[in-house]
Formats: sequence, C-alpha cells, structure tokens
Amino acid sequence: MAGETLQVYFLGTAGALPTVHRNPACIVIRRGSDTLIFDCGEGAQQQMMRAQTGFGVDAIFITHWHADHFLGLLGLVQTMAFNGREDPLRLYGPDGVEGIVHVIEHLSTATMKFPVIGTVLRPGDEIVFDGYRVRAFATRHGMPSLGFVLVEDGRPGRFDREGAIGLGVRPGPLFGRLQRGETVRVTVDGEDREVRPEQVLGPGRPGRSVAYTGDTRFIDLLRAGVPQGVDLLIHDATYDDADRERAAEVYHATAGEAGEAATRIGARRLGLVHLSSRYTSTAGHLRDATAVFSGEVLVPDDLVMIEIPFQDQ
Amino acid sequence: MAGETLQVYFLGTAGALPTVHRNPACIVIRRGSDTLIFDCGEGAQQQMMRAQTGFGVDAIFITHWHADHFLGLLGLVQTMAFNGREDPLRLYGPDGVEGIVHVIEHLSTATMKFPVIGTVLRPGDEIVFDGYRVRAFATRHGMPSLGFVLVEDGRPGRFDREGAIGLGVRPGPLFGRLQRGETVRVTVDGEDREVRPEQVLGPGRPGRSVAYTGDTRFIDLLRAGVPQGVDLLIHDATYDDADRERAAEVYHATAGEAGEAATRIGARRLGLVHLSSRYTSTAGHLRDATAVFSGEVLVPDDLVMIEIPFQDQ
Repeated sequence: MAGETLQVYFLGTAGALPTVHRNPACIVIRRGSDTLIFDCGEGAQQQMMRAQTGFGVDAIFITHWHADHFLGLLGLVQTMAFNGREDPLRLYGPDGVEGIVHVIEHLSTATMKFPVIGTVLRPGDEIVFDGYRVRAFATRHGMPSLGFVLVEDGRPGRFDREGAIGLGVRPGPLFGRLQRGETVRVTVDGEDREVRPEQVLGPGRPGRSVAYTGDTRFIDLLRAGVPQGVDLLIHDATYDDADRERAAEVYHATAGEAGEAATRIGARRLGLVHLSSRYTSTAGHLRDATAVFSGEVLVPDDLVMIEIPFQDQ
Repeated sequence: MAGETLQVYFLGTAGALPTVHRNPACIVIRRGSDTLIFDCGEGAQQQMMRAQTGFGVDAIFITHWHADHFLGLLGLVQTMAFNGREDPLRLYGPDGVEGIVHVIEHLSTATMKFPVIGTVLRPGDEIVFDGYRVRAFATRHGMPSLGFVLVEDGRPGRFDREGAIGLGVRPGPLFGRLQRGETVRVTVDGEDREVRPEQVLGPGRPGRSVAYTGDTRFIDLLRAGVPQGVDLLIHDATYDDADRERAAEVYHATAGEAGEAATRIGARRLGLVHLSSRYTSTAGHLRDATAVFSGEVLVPDDLVMIEIPFQDQ
C-alpha cells in the first residue's frame, strides 16, 4: 500500500514583520488531492501561485487573530471568487472567526458563488477528513490561540503473505478482504475453514502526523494531544536563545525552547518558523535547536516543500 | 536650481488577479523626501521593502474600493505601528474611505500611536503639499472612482545673469532675491536704481506632473484637469486591443485606448499598468499603444523605478 503523498509547503516563515524574503505566516499541507492552509498571512495567494499548490482549498485553519496570521484570507477569497469557486470554504479558528467572516464578506468586491463558513474550535476539537483528522490544541500566546495537528488514520499491520498461503488462502481477492480486516472462508483438503485477519496481519501501524504550533510559549505538547513521535513539528521560533527574556515577554518561543519541545514529544523532524526580522542569518536558530534536539532541524526559507514519508518505509 | 528628485516606483502592475511576478495595484511616488502611495494592493509593504522606498509615507491615495487596490493598507498600517510611527496617516479616496478606516482599526492588533485619517475626495479636490499638489479627477469604472495627478508648482523663469550684471547688480545675495521674485536696489555711478525681477527672469516654467488613472474606461484627461504635456501618464491597460469588447464590459481600457489618451494629452511618456493575468507577454500591449502614441511607452515590471526629469534639462 503506497499511501497518499503528504507534503508540507512553507509559504510564509516571517514573524510579525515580513521581510524581502519571508512572507507572513502560512503553511500549506497537501495530502493526496486535499489542500489545507494553516495560517494565511498577507500575500498567501501569490505564494500559493509560486509553489503551485493550486487553489482547490478544502479548509483553512487559523491559529489566532493577529494580523500577520490571517490578512491573506481577504485577497485569497477574492481570487477564489474570480476563479469561479462554488464549493463552500470552511474556515476554522479560535473565538473571533465570525468577525473575520464578516470582514471578508464586507470587503469582497468580486461576485462570490460560495459561502465562507466560519467555525470556532476549542482545544481537543477534531475536524475529520477522508483518512485523517485535524485536531486543535491549546497554545499560550496571551490571547485565544490554537495549534493544530494533522493525524492520519492508523494503517493495518503488515500482511503476512506466506502465512496466509500456509493457511490455505490463495493469492487473489481473499488477500484484499483479509487486509481490509474481514474474515474469509477457505476449503483445505475438502474441509471448510475460517481465516481471521489477526492470523495474517501484524500489529496496526500509526499514520503520519504533522503538528503546527502557531505563535506560542513552550507548552507540553504531549498533554495537548500531539502524538509521541510526530513526524514533523513546526514550532514558533521567533527568537534565538539570546533573546529568551524578550520571547517570554511577548508570548513567543526561542529556537532552543522549540528544540526542547521536539525532544520531549520525540519528533522526527523540527521546522522552525515565525523568525523575527531582526535576524539576518538562521545560524543562531540552528545552533540553539540542535543543542537540545537530536533529530533533523529545518529553518526553511519561504517556498520550501518537504515530503513526509511513512516511518516504516 | 537643481530641483527636487521625482521618482515613480511601479510596485504592483497586475490586474485584479496577481501573478507570480506582478503584485496588485501600487504606485509609490517619491518627491524629494516626500513619499506618496497611489493604490495599495495586497503585499504593498513587502514591495516597498524590496524597492527600498522607506515607510515614511506622507499620504495614501486610493482610486476606488476594489479589493485589489487597497487590501495592502491593512498590513502596511500594522507594520507602521510596529515601527513606532506617531505621525497621523492620511488616507484619501472616493466615497467609502470611512468604512475602510473602520476596518483598519477593527483588524489592527498592533498598538497604534497614530490615527488614520480618512478623507473623501471629489473630482477637482486638491491636496496641497510643499511645492506640489495632488488633484483628484473623475474616471469611469462603473463605481465611485478617481484618478490622481501630481502637479508641481511652477518654477521661476531662467535667470539672466549677464543682464543682471549689466543693470549693475553684483553677483551675490541680490541674485537670490531677484530669483525669488523680489525687487532690489543698486547704486550705479552714484545713482540709486531699482532692478525688478521681470527684467532679469525669463518666462515662468511649469513644474513636472505625473497622472495615474487607476481603473477606467477611456476618458477626456484634459477636461478632467490633467495638464497638457504631462510628463508621465500611468494608464489602465488591462487588455490589449484584441479584447476591446471585454474591456468595455468591465470598465477597463485597452493599451490602444491608453495610447490614444496619451496622444490627446500630449504626454511625454506612457506607463501601462493593471495588466490582466491572461497575458504572458507584454508585446501586444506595446504594439497597440505605440501604434497610436509616438512618445515613450513603458510596460513596467514590478519594482521598476523611473526618474522624471525637468522638461528643460
């Protein structure tokens, strides 16, 4: 089973102030043919054009209502309207989402054939998609704020092909039924026999997962509901560790704190985002995160895309 | 007299839909140390960073309230607030400006130490700056809409240095007073004498001018108040002439219509902007405009800056 592709596009990696090279916050995740946006800073639509993600957006999740995390919604919705979109656009976020929907509709000057449907999420709420879900978790940013984790459904265990043949199952349609968890009947030496899936399937395997904190202080991600061993943790790293005090004052995290969070949750990879415009190099961030986290650390430039592989591939 | 520099930055030259290379509408004009913005599409603040115009903005003029002409105000104001701006920000445009100021204040999440002061302009209204003025004129876009023309104050005529010496004025402070239009007294052969400025100054010379139509059908620019011989006419050219009917339907102009407007007003140069994303080349626009206008035609890429020289230099 090849499984769906899972791709993460870093479209906006700047902090509150964009720079010449970094746009305000925006992450797009594509899973198979689904497209989800996590935060939608100013200029998101042009970044989507540059990264060729397409505009077939299934849902938009906003971590909090600071302007650098949502202003791009306004232009994006206009472009969707120009493009003739008819599917409802679902917008999820913390308290305040209705007000933003109102502003979007108020400022819209293109003819919209689709509604924007705003839904408030609370920590623990899940939006279920085909084969995965997005769960909101509590973050600490001095205002209503959420992080989000995309978690794929578990996959069945490995199929023991030789074992199945040994139990008298012939290669063919019965293999598929066993892999889907059905009990099948076979005839061996003229005798009817049941073969149950647990006889030929290994232990279930977890799906992949990607967590995005948005803006936050250090938090206990495990308690928040992020799965241990998350494949990619995208964490606020507005500052490097030299600016720890400043980070605490303004409810942001440092690169070292992000590394500590990644270590505790056993993340496979750590992506540092929301870099303050005060830094002209990412060297300090890399140094501080790798000092406490032994997995791969990325400080992606805008428009970087990474694939999330299955852990057992 | 060298005079102030006059620079026009094309920061957004796209039509309603931005492209990978063209941002939504935005023109910045710098005159000496003054900075004015004409339309402020999404991403304007990042384009200003790229072009290094600075954020010391003296006033913002919006041609009309279509989203692609003003959404960039929201992020720009946030960045001004982060940067600690204290000077009031003046925003001028057609009916509706108060509503936009309200949205800016409603969505603002940074601490603002300056007010945004919105003022509705009518055709013919002028905002006077030190050494120049910006005049609004009526355009035709199927909704309340304005164009703007920046007109410098007239400059004194050329100073006849030899003539002044012949009349007994010694080089020095009296030269400056004559050039500023004052009558001076000199003593020639023991006799007191008046020298009047009109004796030593040539005819007054017009200042430079730049007109920007915003989105519009073809209009009579001379009647609208744009000076004959305008140094630069920046005109809607959403379509090339093959799409004349489409242009008429949606209240836009073609490149040929822009060329015709430039010819009638005797423009020195013509800048074509607001190009529809359907064109991947500017060749058709250039062809159609140069067929009817013999002056210089520009179809600027984003971030192009041009200097406006004095006509007698």
